[in-house]
Amino acid sequence: MSKIEQIYMDEALREARKALEEDEVPVGAIVVYKRKVIARAHNQMRMLKDPTAHAEMIVLTQAASYLKNERLTGAIIYVTIEPCAMCAGALILARVKRWVYGADDPKAGACGSVLDIVRNRKLNHRIEVKKGVLAEESRILLKEFFKKKRRKKIPKDYSL
Amino acid sequence: MSKIEQIYMDEALREARKALEEDEVPVGAIVVYKRKVIARAHNQMRMLKDPTAHAEMIVLTQAASYLKNERLTGAIIYVTIEPCAMCAGALILARVKRWVYGADDPKAGACGSVLDIVRNRKLNHRIEVKKGVLAEESRILLKEFFKKKRRKKIPKDYSL
Repeated sequence: MSKIEQIYMDEALREARKALEEDEVPVGAIVVYKRKVIARAHNQMRMLKDPTAHAEMIVLTQAASYLKNERLTGAIIYVTIEPCAMCAGALILARVKRWVYGADDPKAGACGSVLDIVRNRKLNHRIEVKKGVLAEESRILLKEFFKKKRRKKIPKDYSL
Repeated sequence: MSKIEQIYMDEALREARKALEEDEVPVGAIVVYKRKVIARAHNQMRMLKDPTAHAEMIVLTQAASYLKNERLTGAIIYVTIEPCAMCAGALILARVKRWVYGADDPKAGACGSVLDIVRNRKLNHRIEVKKGVLAEESRILLKEFFKKKRRKKIPKDYSL
């Protein structure tokens, strides 16, 4: 894991912490383009009451708006956990170049844990994937969130 | 194919035609809840310059906003083509009950054509799927769009 990857993942973790403060599943993401952070967001599913408002989806929309292009060719996305099927599918549509993530998601991860969408050879775009960057920090945040939820007896079907 | 399914798919096709008029890939979707259409949208990827702006994603956000809930339990979605990985993943997250679609998408379809996300037993929600409703009408719209694109020599990597 390179120093630069840690610095960027730290930015994504900062977003995840904002989600935790807002009682959302703590996931954060940023988009880097030509060494500049052009989008940053955290999960806002419950606040927006929108099943599509995952951190990754929000940053992709932000980054496309910044670049005035629905293709994010050359962009790198940093996200604190392994994306789900929806987010992995969106990364392919956005033609993201590289994608760096922290912790695995054994329940819904779509980069090898449950599905492997990103490296599917039948799809028309391939993304470079790097996993495990500051994974422990991401996991600690998730654990903290679910511990708090259990205390409040919130339904178990909370998903990332 | 029941009469009611045809009527609802006709509504989704009306949305797809709007996309065609706007030079977008002609895909339309509606959400039905308690026999009422609560959301309708068409693909707006290019107009919004947003890789996530597929018809299905827009209707899910609209329907969640209407129901004031990020879970669309009991909702039925009608979409003119087989959803991609992103949209299929979003349908799972939204806990949609049933999903009816028209034509298959052999290039990116995530309900059996390229991937099979919706019926993946490892994921925590199962959706009833019905395919082939007014499929020919959907296919004709798509053919018309790509024929027009070829004439204009637009890059080939247009995806649904």
